Amino acid sequence: MAGKRIGVVLSGCGVYDGSEIHEATLTLYFLDRAKAQIIAMAPNIPQFHVINHLTGEVVGNESRNCLVESARIVRGHIRDIATVKADELDAIILPGGFGAAKNLSTIAFDGADAKIDPDTTRLLLDMYQAKKPIGALCIAPAMLSKVLAGKGVTLTIGDDGGVAGAIQKMGNVHQLSAFDGIVVDAANRIVTTASYMCAASIAEVGPGIEKLVDHLLKMA
Amino acid sequence: MAGKRIGVVLSGCGVYDGSEIHEATLTLYFLDRAKAQIIAMAPNIPQFHVINHLTGEVVGNESRNCLVESARIVRGHIRDIATVKADELDAIILPGGFGAAKNLSTIAFDGADAKIDPDTTRLLLDMYQAKKPIGALCIAPAMLSKVLAGKGVTLTIGDDGGVAGAIQKMGNVHQLSAFDGIVVDAANRIVTTASYMCAASIAEVGPGIEKLVDHLLKMA
Repeated sequence: MAGKRIGVVLSGCGVYDGSEIHEATLTLYFLDRAKAQIIAMAPNIPQFHVINHLTGEVVGNESRNCLVESARIVRGHIRDIATVKADELDAIILPGGFGAAKNLSTIAFDGADAKIDPDTTRLLLDMYQAKKPIGALCIAPAMLSKVLAGKGVTLTIGDDGGVAGAIQKMGNVHQLSAFDGIVVDAANRIVTTASYMCAASIAEVGPGIEKLVDHLLKMA
Repeated sequence: MAGKRIGVVLSGCGVYDGSEIHEATLTLYFLDRAKAQIIAMAPNIPQFHVINHLTGEVVGNESRNCLVESARIVRGHIRDIATVKADELDAIILPGGFGAAKNLSTIAFDGADAKIDPDTTRLLLDMYQAKKPIGALCIAPAMLSKVLAGKGVTLTIGDDGGVAGAIQKMGNVHQLSAFDGIVVDAANRIVTTASYMCAASIAEVGPGIEKLVDHLLKMA
């Protein structure tokens, strides 16, 4: 599996307004341990908002940029997703966090009617059409479902009935899963795991992410 | 080892102006996997500065708070270090990142003459005097060395001659180590690992942190 080029799509730095840090970091850890070549990326757009992670409150007078904040998770090694082409990648992974549902998309507000960042849409559609594997964690499968609306792909976001219903409404299939499992749609080359959609702590998100990374690298 | 209460001292969120995210996250991961009870904390003080992690430049017009930013790494579950007492903890760990050298201390600017955040100093001295184990990663051992100046403790920050010299000047002992090793001072109950002081990627920082956490939990 050495040297496989794996894209990791980030969306800020922190569960409530960006990428979930544990999910993103463990994704990087398992990829690097398997000697994959990591190509981290994020859209160069403002975050939907900034949340004070101590109080949970919106910080009204502050704006942060997705790409700039995502750079914190990868020690500065990151690219604007607008510049990344599918032929540079062997597979791609979308960690979760509200950034996937508020910055990369409007899933958090619009459910099945969500809009998706156009550069992210373009890259994910190109990956899908090139039959390159796509992995998604936590709430990110809901965003991926919208990009692939009507294609009948099978995904999991764990056991959240509301989000599962939105995925069905988008013309895809939701499969229930526990926090430590993965759901594989072999025909469509998609692997998903519920992560913090149902996990209670970082030790619980580890095994699902580890399995997802292993499976994706084997597919790629 | 189940249920041991382990403090994790954070200093912001991002290698260049706060806690190194990979080191902090993997510390949490290995602790949680071992069923330790994690008590995350950070000082409620402004960061020394804010660095744009995409460009590496100082953001002149912005101020961020250590405790508020650190909360991102632990999904909001964090306390002001000023409120934490040594008798609530069985051991404590200091991940690295420039936050340890710029926010928790002035090690980055003043070397052996550094000042240390008073609440952090108080808690670390109380832990030391109570003979409770202390772990430190990356540059954090240099800060710990200043808190324990003149006590002759043995620490590693890897192989950086300048920082090693500062540690000797503080009246402590520096021991060379590779990125994946730990240095144990059994008499003083201190475990240190070099992490990103010499590691090149997240897979390289993993083994040292895993060993440090295992050893610390056995000592606690």
